[in-house]
Amino acid sequence: MRGEDDIDLPTFDDVAAAHERIRPYIHRTPILTSETFDRMTGAKLFFKCENFQKAGAFKARGASNAVFSLSDEQAAKGVATHSSGNHGLSLSYAAGRRGIPCKVVMPRTAPEPKKAAVRGYGGEVIECEPSTSSREAVFAEVVASSGAEFVHPYNDPRVIAGQGTCSKEMIEDLGELDAVIAPIGGGGMVSGCCLTLSTLSPSTKIYAAEPQAADDAYQSFKSGEIVAYDAPVTIADGLKVPLKERTWHFVRTYVEDVLLADEDEIVDAMRLTWERMKIVMEPSCAVPLATILKNKHLFAGKRVGVVVTGGNVDLDKLPWMK
Amino acid sequence: MRGEDDIDLPTFDDVAAAHERIRPYIHRTPILTSETFDRMTGAKLFFKCENFQKAGAFKARGASNAVFSLSDEQAAKGVATHSSGNHGLSLSYAAGRRGIPCKVVMPRTAPEPKKAAVRGYGGEVIECEPSTSSREAVFAEVVASSGAEFVHPYNDPRVIAGQGTCSKEMIEDLGELDAVIAPIGGGGMVSGCCLTLSTLSPSTKIYAAEPQAADDAYQSFKSGEIVAYDAPVTIADGLKVPLKERTWHFVRTYVEDVLLADEDEIVDAMRLTWERMKIVMEPSCAVPLATILKNKHLFAGKRVGVVVTGGNVDLDKLPWMK
Repeated sequence: MRGEDDIDLPTFDDVAAAHERIRPYIHRTPILTSETFDRMTGAKLFFKCENFQKAGAFKARGASNAVFSLSDEQAAKGVATHSSGNHGLSLSYAAGRRGIPCKVVMPRTAPEPKKAAVRGYGGEVIECEPSTSSREAVFAEVVASSGAEFVHPYNDPRVIAGQGTCSKEMIEDLGELDAVIAPIGGGGMVSGCCLTLSTLSPSTKIYAAEPQAADDAYQSFKSGEIVAYDAPVTIADGLKVPLKERTWHFVRTYVEDVLLADEDEIVDAMRLTWERMKIVMEPSCAVPLATILKNKHLFAGKRVGVVVTGGNVDLDKLPWMK
Repeated sequence: MRGEDDIDLPTFDDVAAAHERIRPYIHRTPILTSETFDRMTGAKLFFKCENFQKAGAFKARGASNAVFSLSDEQAAKGVATHSSGNHGLSLSYAAGRRGIPCKVVMPRTAPEPKKAAVRGYGGEVIECEPSTSSREAVFAEVVASSGAEFVHPYNDPRVIAGQGTCSKEMIEDLGELDAVIAPIGGGGMVSGCCLTLSTLSPSTKIYAAEPQAADDAYQSFKSGEIVAYDAPVTIADGLKVPLKERTWHFVRTYVEDVLLADEDEIVDAMRLTWERMKIVMEPSCAVPLATILKNKHLFAGKRVGVVVTGGNVDLDKLPWMK
């Protein structure tokens, strides 16, 4: 691994440029509030609904920024990625908008609706085993044979800058926030929040919310170096991947704390959100609310932005179905 | 029944007054769009998300208007209603905001979460048999014994004026619309649309969408007089009740047509909306989209407002669960 000085990190100027670049291809998503949740938590919560985003998740921001940053020559060879779901879908969406090929390596165990959706946007799905190691091996072959531009799901400065547009909209729409909390998997959204908020609103505390069953970011944060698991098991299937050097830079520099929730707490918070806020969201998105409910002392009396990261779920396999 | 000349009908001035009166107690709900649905229908659809409304349905508008219109003397005796669900919930919500008693007669077969929610807002649930005749009989006793002010779910000028604030917001936010479509049960929302649009946007065509299995409004519209069923069976359980004289006035005067969808079409449209728009909504709310998909010629190339009426569903009994 290269030393920190060698990493190409995005700046806030990249976020601002990304916002202009991707504006035609993304939704400025609505922000919902809930008196019920405010009463339950003692905080004033603002839910940024990226489940309503194009392709159903915030990942459309980073993917669109990467795809529309390419030179025509690069673009002609297409793009490729590995992704447990939403990034692959979003890259396929963005590539489709630019009219270029997109190859997506996905675990064979990924939800069928996600594979179908990638194909629906015109992307090609290439299956691998459900582990980080298999995914990376299969992917290396795909890139070598096609010459496609690799767009990593999160360890890519174009992607991080794109994700940074989400918290930029929150600050523009809401003004000052005491805290922002987002789920953490690879750390792309959290890094985008760090990048944007450290410029626009440096007093805003940034929390990362993680499933206890895949607590690699928590372990990294506490130990001071990247901890990675090969194939953790959690209902929050968007959050299984480990930090990489770029996201680790932002997490260790700007994040206030990594908060954990167990599987039951995640499912309870997910169901509660469906019932009370009437939105369809993924289990991953429930992790922030689950951790806020466990750590009310951190948020009581505060204005808190909560990133609802995506809404791509299999309606035949909801976690409360028996 | 009294002749038409004797009916007290609300005017658009009542809608404007209602909007000012209820503003502190309701959400100005967001309007969502979907490229997927626009592509599928050929129309430009604007979904007014009353599933995000207070108490989970548009009924909070009419109920709040009725409750906050009462004199202090009337209010002290409380309010009462019969309702298959959302109106009872909303009246209980509004009464709770004013701090007055609320009695709700509900079919014993109504979803448990709806009964619990009425009680959660402080209302009292009184059960009846699941038929219009039983509901009305039990209710008469309740009103006689308590002296509470009857707020009918829809056949009440205060309620209709309150529901009219929904399409007022649509026109304010969207400008001109070629058509507005809403589900029809008793006709409160459709009447509110008629009342508002006939003043603010008389060229907008108003469509009512109804389950074929409970097509009393359709039969009324075609025959020219109110047709009522006692206990129709449909998945769209908010739409089982018949028109009454005030809503019938608006339906026959201003509605362009009543469009029908069968049960499978309703469930398909409901699931499609959950998957694509990522919103939790009731089966009743899927009837407009189901009818638009069946009648594309009426809507192609048009700007169409679609009222998503409510989001109170039992997540353990989704219609696609086996």
